Formats: sequence, structure tokens, C-alpha cells
Amino acid sequence: MAENQRIEKQLAFLVEADRVKTVLRRTLLADGSRFENDAEHSWHLCLCALLLREYAPQPIDMARVLAMVTIHDLIEIEAGDTYCYDAEKVLGQHEREEAAADLIFSRLPADQKESLRALWEEFEEKSTNESRFANALDRIQPLLNNYQTHGTTWRQGGVTRSMVYARMDPIRTGMPRLWEEVCRIIEECVQKGFLPDR
Amino acid sequence: MAENQRIEKQLAFLVEADRVKTVLRRTLLADGSRFENDAEHSWHLCLCALLLREYAPQPIDMARVLAMVTIHDLIEIEAGDTYCYDAEKVLGQHEREEAAADLIFSRLPADQKESLRALWEEFEEKSTNESRFANALDRIQPLLNNYQTHGTTWRQGGVTRSMVYARMDPIRTGMPRLWEEVCRIIEECVQKGFLPDR
Repeated sequence: MAENQRIEKQLAFLVEADRVKTVLRRTLLADGSRFENDAEHSWHLCLCALLLREYAPQPIDMARVLAMVTIHDLIEIEAGDTYCYDAEKVLGQHEREEAAADLIFSRLPADQKESLRALWEEFEEKSTNESRFANALDRIQPLLNNYQTHGTTWRQGGVTRSMVYARMDPIRTGMPRLWEEVCRIIEECVQKGFLPDR
Repeated sequence: MAENQRIEKQLAFLVEADRVKTVLRRTLLADGSRFENDAEHSWHLCLCALLLREYAPQPIDMARVLAMVTIHDLIEIEAGDTYCYDAEKVLGQHEREEAAADLIFSRLPADQKESLRALWEEFEEKSTNESRFANALDRIQPLLNNYQTHGTTWRQGGVTRSMVYARMDPIRTGMPRLWEEVCRIIEECVQKGFLPDR
């Protein structure tokens, strides 16, 4: 491919990716003013990675972690956000997201299509040090925002203490030294009435 | 500092940083629906870094670039966004941002305060390969969005062709092989009436 065609393709992808800023999640901003979108969430995970890297239990390649959290929700511009506590929606999530990944990454030059797709698969599979750490970040960030907003969207979604513990489980392996603090936050949410005790 | 105190400080910083999502820039989303905020912009720079790294003219440490663009606008939660084409505001920008940096980074544990502050200074000084590349990203992303939105906020701000060329200049050194394409986009903006030819 001629270099100018390659550049056109890369810039077109960057423009298309702007839509990530319009995919709303079920988490509120910490000030409760509105729903957070995927771009904001992904940026917040980058910042979490920078500040919490010392809690990764094995050595990690930071460039790989940051790349992974940057691209982990790109597929949602086609697949939409799947609320993690919506059991029905979660059922078809994998197929929906694989189809979206086929579509989205194919818009890149072949070498970048391969590398970004592989990075996204790695995040999903949680089988490397980097992806386990990245998934732990993807759990703790919304927990912080849910705590700040008094569990508003948890209540709207009928989320309970045991559901949050199950959802936060990747932190136990991805950032084990933070697990005690995570449990403390969840228990405080229960005590304050942000989460029902069941 | 005991580990739990350190964790508390880091998590409090991550919550405080949520405010980056509420600092509005003078760039619109590509679909023109609203102003972009600093968190979305910073995320978009991370994605630009991943896709455009081959245009860095010297070897770069990607973890450093991604970290730099992630944190480069943190200081705006105190200093606010300074519109780059507002000559009056730009005058006091440096002092305003240094004061904000003093305040914000001091909320971190000492080692992280030092390292994040140094990273932010490096971005500002544009004296390393990584910071020159990061600054080039910080120029091309808004150019793409301004092109997509037909220069709406340029027109509102009285921005002209020569002002955009001056603003885009870091791309000449930070990503020289993209400069021709950048000039092509600017000239197309002039031809289409998004930018006055002066």
C-alpha cells in the first residue's frame, strides 16, 4: 500500500473512533452529573494503570497495558455497551463483540488490524500478566465511581453485594494487594445502604 | 507511609481526577453534537499514539508517550482549558498551569508526585523524542475534529489559515512524514471555506 493510502486509512480510523465518546456506560461520573462514556472510562483506566502499577503481582509491560485499556472498548461503537449486571444481555455479548471486532479492526491496514485485534483478544482472555492487571483496573474504576455516587446505578439495576463481589473478582488475582481495600469499600457500601446485603 | 495510607492517597487522586471529564475544550466531537472534554481528548491521543507511532522520526518509548498524553491535561482541573487561539489567555497560561501542577501533583505519594510532575514538564518542554511526538499528536487530533465539524469553533474564534499553520508546527518535527497530509487538510479547509485564507 502506498504511504499516503496507509495514512488516509489510519486517519479515517481515528475519526471513526471518535464515536467511542458517544457510547454511554451504566456508571455515573464521580460528581453524579451524567453517565460516563467509553472514552472517558478508557482514559481513566490509563491513569489507574499509571498510579496502581506497583500492585501488579508480576512484572508487566506498561506500554502493552496502556495500549490494551486504550482499545478495549473500541468494539462497543458497533456492539454497544453491555451492562455487566444484565444477565440476559451478557449471554449474547461474546458473539456480538466478536462480530463487531471483525468489522472494526478490518478498517485498519493489515498489520495494525492484526496487532490491535490480538491485543483486544488478549484483554478478553485474561491469560497474561498484562491482561489480568488491565481487567483488574477495569473493575476498580467503576467501583470508585459507584461508591462516590452512592450506588445510584446499582440500585437502578437491582445489583446486590454478592453480584459486586463476583464482578470484582479479577482484582483478587490482578492486583491482590488491593483486594482488602476493595472488600472494605464494598462493605462500606453495604453499611451505607448503597448495596443490599444479599 | 503505611501501605494502606498510600493506597488511600492513590485512590483519592483517581477520584479527584474524574473532574478531567468535566473540563470542556473548544473542539467539537467529530459528529458536531457537543464540545469534547479533556478526558476524551487524552484518550484519543493515546489511540493516535498507537496508530501513528511509525511516523515518529526517532525511536520512542511508547509507555512514556502513552503516560505523557494520559496525564498532560490533569492540571486543567485547576487551571481550566486555555483556548490555544486566545492570545490574551495564552499569556498567563504558563504561570497558571505551574501553580495548578504544584497543587495537583502534591496530592500524590512523594515518588509519584515527582515522576508525574516530571512527565508533565517533559511534555511541556518538547525537548525529548517522546514529548515532541506527544505534542504532534496533541495537534493532529483537534485538526481532524475541526475538519469533520467544518471548522465551526475556528469560525467562532476568528481563527485563520496562518494561525492553524503556526499551531500545527510541532507536527513538522514530531511526525515529519505526516506534514504533507496536514498541509493538504489545512488547504482543503481553506478551499471549503472552513478557514479564511489569511
